[in-house]
Amino acid sequence: VTSNPRLGILGLGTVGSGLVRLIRRREPHLRAAHGVTLQIGGAAVRSGGKPRAPDLAGIPITTDPLALARSPETDIVVELIGGFDTALDCVRAALEAGKPVVTANKALLAHHGPELYALARERGVPLFAEASVGGGIPILKALRESLVANEISSLVGILNGTTNYVLTRMEEDGVSYFEALRMADERGYTEADPSLDIEGIDAKHKLQILAAHLCGGAYPEGEILREGIGDVTARDFFFARRRGLTIKLLAIARKSAGEIELRVHPALVPRTHPLAGVRDQFNAIVLEGDAVGEIMLYGAGAGAMPTASSVYADIVDICTRVARGGGAGAGTEPTPLRIKPASDVESEYYLRVTVSDEPGVIGEVATILGAHGISVSSVAGELIPNAAGLGDLEIVIHRTREGALLSALASIDGLPRIRGRTRFLRLLGSPGGVP
Amino acid sequence: VTSNPRLGILGLGTVGSGLVRLIRRREPHLRAAHGVTLQIGGAAVRSGGKPRAPDLAGIPITTDPLALARSPETDIVVELIGGFDTALDCVRAALEAGKPVVTANKALLAHHGPELYALARERGVPLFAEASVGGGIPILKALRESLVANEISSLVGILNGTTNYVLTRMEEDGVSYFEALRMADERGYTEADPSLDIEGIDAKHKLQILAAHLCGGAYPEGEILREGIGDVTARDFFFARRRGLTIKLLAIARKSAGEIELRVHPALVPRTHPLAGVRDQFNAIVLEGDAVGEIMLYGAGAGAMPTASSVYADIVDICTRVARGGGAGAGTEPTPLRIKPASDVESEYYLRVTVSDEPGVIGEVATILGAHGISVSSVAGELIPNAAGLGDLEIVIHRTREGALLSALASIDGLPRIRGRTRFLRLLGSPGGVP
Repeated sequence: VTSNPRLGILGLGTVGSGLVRLIRRREPHLRAAHGVTLQIGGAAVRSGGKPRAPDLAGIPITTDPLALARSPETDIVVELIGGFDTALDCVRAALEAGKPVVTANKALLAHHGPELYALARERGVPLFAEASVGGGIPILKALRESLVANEISSLVGILNGTTNYVLTRMEEDGVSYFEALRMADERGYTEADPSLDIEGIDAKHKLQILAAHLCGGAYPEGEILREGIGDVTARDFFFARRRGLTIKLLAIARKSAGEIELRVHPALVPRTHPLAGVRDQFNAIVLEGDAVGEIMLYGAGAGAMPTASSVYADIVDICTRVARGGGAGAGTEPTPLRIKPASDVESEYYLRVTVSDEPGVIGEVATILGAHGISVSSVAGELIPNAAGLGDLEIVIHRTREGALLSALASIDGLPRIRGRTRFLRLLGSPGGVP
Repeated sequence: VTSNPRLGILGLGTVGSGLVRLIRRREPHLRAAHGVTLQIGGAAVRSGGKPRAPDLAGIPITTDPLALARSPETDIVVELIGGFDTALDCVRAALEAGKPVVTANKALLAHHGPELYALARERGVPLFAEASVGGGIPILKALRESLVANEISSLVGILNGTTNYVLTRMEEDGVSYFEALRMADERGYTEADPSLDIEGIDAKHKLQILAAHLCGGAYPEGEILREGIGDVTARDFFFARRRGLTIKLLAIARKSAGEIELRVHPALVPRTHPLAGVRDQFNAIVLEGDAVGEIMLYGAGAGAMPTASSVYADIVDICTRVARGGGAGAGTEPTPLRIKPASDVESEYYLRVTVSDEPGVIGEVATILGAHGISVSSVAGELIPNAAGLGDLEIVIHRTREGALLSALASIDGLPRIRGRTRFLRLLGSPGGVP
């Protein structure tokens, strides 16, 4: 890469336009600090006739992103198209031509990361994607560089701003899930299809990218446990509050003995945990390193300018870093790990059993748990009456294999005095101890 | 720097020994990821005869750090001696010889930073000091690289772990300042001379280094407002809790119109602010960037291994980054700013006036505030009786110049019905709005 690299910017939506503004605004700083001047060689858009903002004037526009990615006039390819087909073709073509690539496309990397990172390593060029996880939060660079002294054993993140906003409103305003979702919608925090967010699919994509960085660039194979926030109720928050807990949609990666736990689900988080204070649409990631201990990065997980900030930093990194060794984004010595089966993952659990108020039922439930080797940490003896005239019995159980719990719950839910299905939520342990 | 640089490690205390362990533990990773192998050319210690841990065997030991820093066999100098005299001589000699330097010495950079960074820029070599601020938190690298797209307008940090531990115990256990200090001492969190911590001197040193990074490497000139935590009482926490606030020792930097506000003092922090959740001995820094918005980095602010983690990352950065342009730690285009006089700084304030319970006193106090152009945001009408049989009147005032407030307080404290001195605490605004 020369000191005057020509960028091919694929996509001039809000992030692309923000990037152009940053490139112009920071030009004097970049020249003074690094002797680098970024040239905008061209931008690819879907429709050439559309009027552009005045500050985008002077940029050569094309409607053929693949040609721009392949052009000998393009030194660095910045993929901001999103989606799969065209984006994949362009990134692949750029890497094949030995060009560094910067992308913000989490879905692309979640689905085609293994192929694309392998190609980047083979050609010895960087594939950087800071903006694909946590928006403006420099998490991938921290894993790659700042924490280079550390073996990272676990990572717990709030990776989706929409769902965190919904859960924060449920907690702080006491509103229902649907009311909170409507509030998120009013603020423009929801997508046309909200299922990507609320079902945890977006968080899962980001977790896959993070996991690849934890495994030196290898994408772990297997099924990722994924549960959205659709089942979280005001009553869950009522009980959580009584115990000094809150509820967050967490993405969790934890290495253990040649396997990696990967899961996305709502979890109870102690109020004293740093993730408990991550409110509204903010994102945060807590890492555990063997030298640094616990560390957290927090910031805007989405938005045009935070995302453009990360894209810009990736471009500057490409211009200033030696391509010694590989230099591909996610390391050069992939250690493939298998994803631990969900039934083998261990956690503490909170259970809420709805019963008719009969004294023997606690003993029956405890007997079934015991028969499955599950040890009870606490039982709330009083039955908290609920709206239907029944009572809720709360049970916290010690660290247990999820498979054993699910099997016990099947038996419990078959008891004649149990009404409905037992609600269970996983507990995030204290810092350092992931559920 | 070659791909097999020889390190001269000055100081083999807990951080130096931790660094040696990391270098050995991470050798395969560094070779695979970057093709770099770090050689330990030698280590300088105070007393050569002392027995060393078995894992430090094989390292050439000298008692002459200056000779090691100057030696043609040393490619990178790692200064872990601390203090001024020898450390300063060694860092200066290394930079003069054109060698990259990594240091963890905050006092050295706070006092001699202007000279040393200028020398580094002149010789075109990096002077990296990630470990000097926030221990294992990669804050300087974030300012230098990850946030390169941003003009950083403000920074608010909890930069001293000892005082944060003391304040956390006061808040959560309801103990007195002295009891909390004793608890910190028991845990080994206090220095032989605790005044560096509790008077805010250590936090001020770190703030000076951060400010230099905000100003492109220039050390702002002028007086830094500094208040320790010695005056914070259990009664302050009692009142804070009633208002949904906590109390933290904050280090604040904020740019405004050719000046920079720099100050270290205890402040009231809303429970909803991300810094409110930073407990015990942890550190955190909240930054406001014009593109990225609000971002926070959180982690262990001290300790041998977190500190060694940052030193190691600095060394790897030196080995893998192009020295294009300057490459000196704190940028290459210093923008010198004057420190705004403390009396010109504006903030919201919380006042607690101790009065004998007489109705006219509220009017007298409000009249004096009004005469100084200070507008009252809220007055707690009820007088909260205190131990001495007097009452405490609480007043929150809108954004005010500190000079105006101090002048008003001088008049208020002269009123006959006011007992003792008025307690005042600055309030940290909501995210984005520094006090």
